[in-house]
Amino acid sequence: MRHMIFGESHGPAIGVVVEGVPAGLDLDLEQVQKELDRRKPGQDPTATARKESDRVEVLSGVFEGKTTGAPLAMVIRNADQHSGDYESIRYTPRPGHGDYAGFIKSQGCLDYRGGGHFSGRLTAPLVAAGAVAKQVLAGRGVWVGAHISSIYGICDASLEDTEDLKGVAAKAFPVLDDGKGEEMRQAILEAKEEQDSVGGAIECAVTGLPAGLGAPDFGCNVEGVFSQYLFAVPAVKGVDFGAGVAFSLMRGSEANDPFEVRDGKVVTRTNHAGGVNGGITNGMPVTFEVTIRPTPSISLPQESVDLRTGEEVEIEIKGRHDPCIVPRAVPVIEAAAALAACQVLGL
Amino acid sequence: MRHMIFGESHGPAIGVVVEGVPAGLDLDLEQVQKELDRRKPGQDPTATARKESDRVEVLSGVFEGKTTGAPLAMVIRNADQHSGDYESIRYTPRPGHGDYAGFIKSQGCLDYRGGGHFSGRLTAPLVAAGAVAKQVLAGRGVWVGAHISSIYGICDASLEDTEDLKGVAAKAFPVLDDGKGEEMRQAILEAKEEQDSVGGAIECAVTGLPAGLGAPDFGCNVEGVFSQYLFAVPAVKGVDFGAGVAFSLMRGSEANDPFEVRDGKVVTRTNHAGGVNGGITNGMPVTFEVTIRPTPSISLPQESVDLRTGEEVEIEIKGRHDPCIVPRAVPVIEAAAALAACQVLGL
Amino acid sequence: MRHMIFGESHGPAIGVVVEGVPAGLDLDLEQVQKELDRRKPGQDPTATARKESDRVEVLSGVFEGKTTGAPLAMVIRNADQHSGDYESIRYTPRPGHGDYAGFIKSQGCLDYRGGGHFSGRLTAPLVAAGAVAKQVLAGRGVWVGAHISSIYGICDASLEDTEDLKGVAAKAFPVLDDGKGEEMRQAILEAKEEQDSVGGAIECAVTGLPAGLGAPDFGCNVEGVFSQYLFAVPAVKGVDFGAGVAFSLMRGSEANDPFEVRDGKVVTRTNHAGGVNGGITNGMPVTFEVTIRPTPSISLPQESVDLRTGEEVEIEIKGRHDPCIVPRAVPVIEAAAALAACQVLGL
Amino acid sequence: MRHMIFGESHGPAIGVVVEGVPAGLDLDLEQVQKELDRRKPGQDPTATARKESDRVEVLSGVFEGKTTGAPLAMVIRNADQHSGDYESIRYTPRPGHGDYAGFIKSQGCLDYRGGGHFSGRLTAPLVAAGAVAKQVLAGRGVWVGAHISSIYGICDASLEDTEDLKGVAAKAFPVLDDGKGEEMRQAILEAKEEQDSVGGAIECAVTGLPAGLGAPDFGCNVEGVFSQYLFAVPAVKGVDFGAGVAFSLMRGSEANDPFEVRDGKVVTRTNHAGGVNGGITNGMPVTFEVTIRPTPSISLPQESVDLRTGEEVEIEIKGRHDPCIVPRAVPVIEAAAALAACQVLGL
Repeated sequence: MRHMIFGESHGPAIGVVVEGVPAGLDLDLEQVQKELDRRKPGQDPTATARKESDRVEVLSGVFEGKTTGAPLAMVIRNADQHSGDYESIRYTPRPGHGDYAGFIKSQGCLDYRGGGHFSGRLTAPLVAAGAVAKQVLAGRGVWVGAHISSIYGICDASLEDTEDLKGVAAKAFPVLDDGKGEEMRQAILEAKEEQDSVGGAIECAVTGLPAGLGAPDFGCNVEGVFSQYLFAVPAVKGVDFGAGVAFSLMRGSEANDPFEVRDGKVVTRTNHAGGVNGGITNGMPVTFEVTIRPTPSISLPQESVDLRTGEEVEIEIKGRHDPCIVPRAVPVIEAAAALAACQVLGL
Repeated sequence: MRHMIFGESHGPAIGVVVEGVPAGLDLDLEQVQKELDRRKPGQDPTATARKESDRVEVLSGVFEGKTTGAPLAMVIRNADQHSGDYESIRYTPRPGHGDYAGFIKSQGCLDYRGGGHFSGRLTAPLVAAGAVAKQVLAGRGVWVGAHISSIYGICDASLEDTEDLKGVAAKAFPVLDDGKGEEMRQAILEAKEEQDSVGGAIECAVTGLPAGLGAPDFGCNVEGVFSQYLFAVPAVKGVDFGAGVAFSLMRGSEANDPFEVRDGKVVTRTNHAGGVNGGITNGMPVTFEVTIRPTPSISLPQESVDLRTGEEVEIEIKGRHDPCIVPRAVPVIEAAAALAACQVLGL
Repeated sequence: MRHMIFGESHGPAIGVVVEGVPAGLDLDLEQVQKELDRRKPGQDPTATARKESDRVEVLSGVFEGKTTGAPLAMVIRNADQHSGDYESIRYTPRPGHGDYAGFIKSQGCLDYRGGGHFSGRLTAPLVAAGAVAKQVLAGRGVWVGAHISSIYGICDASLEDTEDLKGVAAKAFPVLDDGKGEEMRQAILEAKEEQDSVGGAIECAVTGLPAGLGAPDFGCNVEGVFSQYLFAVPAVKGVDFGAGVAFSLMRGSEANDPFEVRDGKVVTRTNHAGGVNGGITNGMPVTFEVTIRPTPSISLPQESVDLRTGEEVEIEIKGRHDPCIVPRAVPVIEAAAALAACQVLGL
Repeated sequence: MRHMIFGESHGPAIGVVVEGVPAGLDLDLEQVQKELDRRKPGQDPTATARKESDRVEVLSGVFEGKTTGAPLAMVIRNADQHSGDYESIRYTPRPGHGDYAGFIKSQGCLDYRGGGHFSGRLTAPLVAAGAVAKQVLAGRGVWVGAHISSIYGICDASLEDTEDLKGVAAKAFPVLDDGKGEEMRQAILEAKEEQDSVGGAIECAVTGLPAGLGAPDFGCNVEGVFSQYLFAVPAVKGVDFGAGVAFSLMRGSEANDPFEVRDGKVVTRTNHAGGVNGGITNGMPVTFEVTIRPTPSISLPQESVDLRTGEEVEIEIKGRHDPCIVPRAVPVIEAAAALAACQVLGL
């Protein structure tokens, strides 16, 4: 399964083409829509007031309700666009955004409205593709779940058992510990109040991948494959497997996962390795945490440069933005992980 | 530039083939050898006593001292092998190693001696390929440097200016602050004393990449490209760009890098983004930190399972192992980063 | 530039996503439409009476008339479908078609209507993508042209000078010698009369590619790159460069192209090599001929097997089909060649 | 399975790395050597008198006689080199060779001795890789065979049954009809006598591939995959599947392969399609013919240009060359086809 995402925030439509979807899958479009709804704004008072209906239309690859194995194209028409909000930032790149890098890359020919192709809105087709991948994985006993692991330093309960993630997906604010979730919400609303934003982290687990997938070599190793999908999600700045950055504080005797036999199967007692040794799955859940930077779009005045004149200027970003994108990014990370898991499985 | 690494720790030879090296480069083989020497054991008392001469032989792709553009093959013959040390672990996988995952993947047909193809020794050809990449980059004004940023919780001085990395490469123990380095050494030697090992982290910077390289899309984004090379280095469990995991503790107003004009050029005052916005280079140094897990090979008794009988057993690993691989991994991370930078440049 | 084509003949829409289009190109959509019109049926009395309006809609990648470098998505809505015509062949594959192979691959979940994703109609998005590629190439002095070289054994005049192709594109029946074209038309109409079809060949030239592109190695050599694009065109069964199959009848002294200096430039007197030596362009036009099989859809009774019962059956194909697809395939081959040329140029 | 071939004709060694070889294969190195021996010169009086011992050394990927799944590296040391023969052609490219294109590509930094990386000698590692692929395929019931189908217009008997290829591999001059083979030999010796060379064609069949492999899409279709491997063989200028160029002379009623049931299996009575419909295997043997250009190295005087001075010059090529490479190319084409078949099978 290979995919290509297209579209701009304020263009006619966004979408995705997925090649190599196995034929014969009873595609549950309601389920695809549900995943899109998890991602869409307005689910929680901490999110942007912007409305996105995000109805997905399937253009190809499905016949009589089943996938045919031909490329599956899904399109979402854009609506509720306030393009005028963006004219002022056309030549004054917003700090933290792709505006400047994109301006240089495109030699000035950038659709600057709402972030254009760099917009977080482009995660909608990714979620749609991931929803298909999840259905493909379900038929192979593989499941993907995630939760907000921290926002602005407030940490969710630690994940003891990947089963605990099963109930999280249905929550508007997907945490294990709702009390901690309430604290996180407060931190978000405080930042919003102060015209600012906050960052956080998401922990994700993929269960059911058999041992022996991947290879240590470049292009094949499981961590490399996952990271390539995860870093393609806007705002992800770090990807850490298993114990992650805590490995740097550990001794080998703590970090090594002892082998044992459970129900006649070789498993590891702990899973610091995050399910991967030597670039190959070891049969334990593949776990990782991604760091999500604070939303770069904040209303506070910021310093920029006018790219026409080369003069330093102060800008103020208008428009309606999430003061924290971490909650809405949870289904996006799951989608990226689902696509990665398909690649690891050789689909 | 694409590469394939081959070989096993106790086989006849290890090596690498690099396709797409630009023609006409005056290949400095002494420099390649120097990079290999930085990586080889025995440079510092904290490292393994194992000897690796690691003389590289160029089999192709160079003529009259210049690269021809044809595939460049480099081979290093193996020597000083104590294969007998490993017979005992053939069917009892070492915790934290690729032994078990590799056994399953290969259906039992694994060269178990010294980690086989999973061995850290396979980073030698990676360093050789990276040394070629560094020379290619030098001709384009791109430079790669790294330092140990922490070992077992002891942190090096923070990197204020990437210029400060220039002096680090020559050190046997590559840190910015030698006092901190001495503390790190103590931590390593203590762990060694206790038959244990320790983890750490390496910070790396790539300077001179022009703005506008990469794209937000899957397979093209700069962070995704770098991470794929970095996770292919054994023992790397996390890759975090710019401010990295600290983004999760930040507000947007702290995280966003303000634009300013310096020497007539648009730059950012800070570089929390690590030189990448929206998957595209912004002209600032590309910076990232990788987390290196503690060496899994420790002499302490550990729990394993005999894969023939399914019985739980206790194992003791013999052989000479680094109590901390972080110092020797510094040139390896640089090599991976150099190869990634070549890909980002479209070489 | 990488592309993904999607859609089925009788689904809601067909289309293509093209990644990596250089930014800043003034995209001439009229020109894209003109290429589509060259391909559409009804241009010549020898073609099918089926109507295809084929209006292309650009969904992304273009802003204020210029390409932005973001993925360019183009969609063509389907219309004028007679899906009922195909019910009878659902389980009785048509000889020469992808029906049977597709049925097995998709485990029976095939959109059988009008060939589904295998339909020649899917060459419309390919032509659209190729039209974009042609505009990219034009900015680099590269031009692509083709003519019908033979139909059912009737050969067009031989191509002495690639300049002669410039006038061919505007013709409804794209040949160099219109007298020969009239003979070909007769052969097609005779076949049509007899409820049959005929095959032929197309010769194509790409001019302006500089010497030194490509490499002898797998995945890089120019002939391999072109052939991969060309064989992705339905009905292409052979790809032959330069003198092509005639090389098997030649001596080296005839086949070798002597070097000479013309206008201060090294060129070859003849171009039997088709512009490629050792997998690398030599600066001469890249020329090749593709063989196009006769349209498999013929009205004559044919032998098939009912895939439900395993019984041999006789089928008759209804619907409106081209008795010869060679004329309409000319812009398709040009499109595939243009995309290949972009890859060879490293775009 | 992916491979990289390296080396130059007059460098220290040539070789290949093959990634993704399935683990657990009892690698028969004698069989690998036998395939190399089929390719080596001196098997038949029509071939060059040059000696190539071509002993392959396995550097990695095999342990205790079995493949481990790790990259398999094979190296062949060079010997019997007459490098002095080539000094004269350093700046005067030989017509028909990659000399000029390679000179431009490498900006003059070309190993010009014996064709360097462009040498037909580089087909030896390809044969070695293909010999491994053949063993992988054998375990899956897939078999590859080929014969000389024509030389200088003299055609071998036509291949009625792919079984007939089984006896051909053992012949020094691999044809179905030895009488025709004798005529071909005469044509080669006549050309040799006249300091010239001749071209020809090879027909190849891959049997045992199940129906349903591949896809119509770019990068996936079976003909495209095979052609990419085949055009990577030096001197191949055309690849034609099934009826090949004869399709251009056919009517649909002749070209279409009628379906029938044989031994309870759906097959086609004829195999004009060469086992591929719509880019997907249909269960019949995959058959194709490749056109091999005449050896460009001939002793007759030829016209060239001195690349230093830009003057037209006459050159004479010294050295020992095959007056026809078709016979020795038979195992090479088989090797390329075997690697392609592995890719089509998803290995």
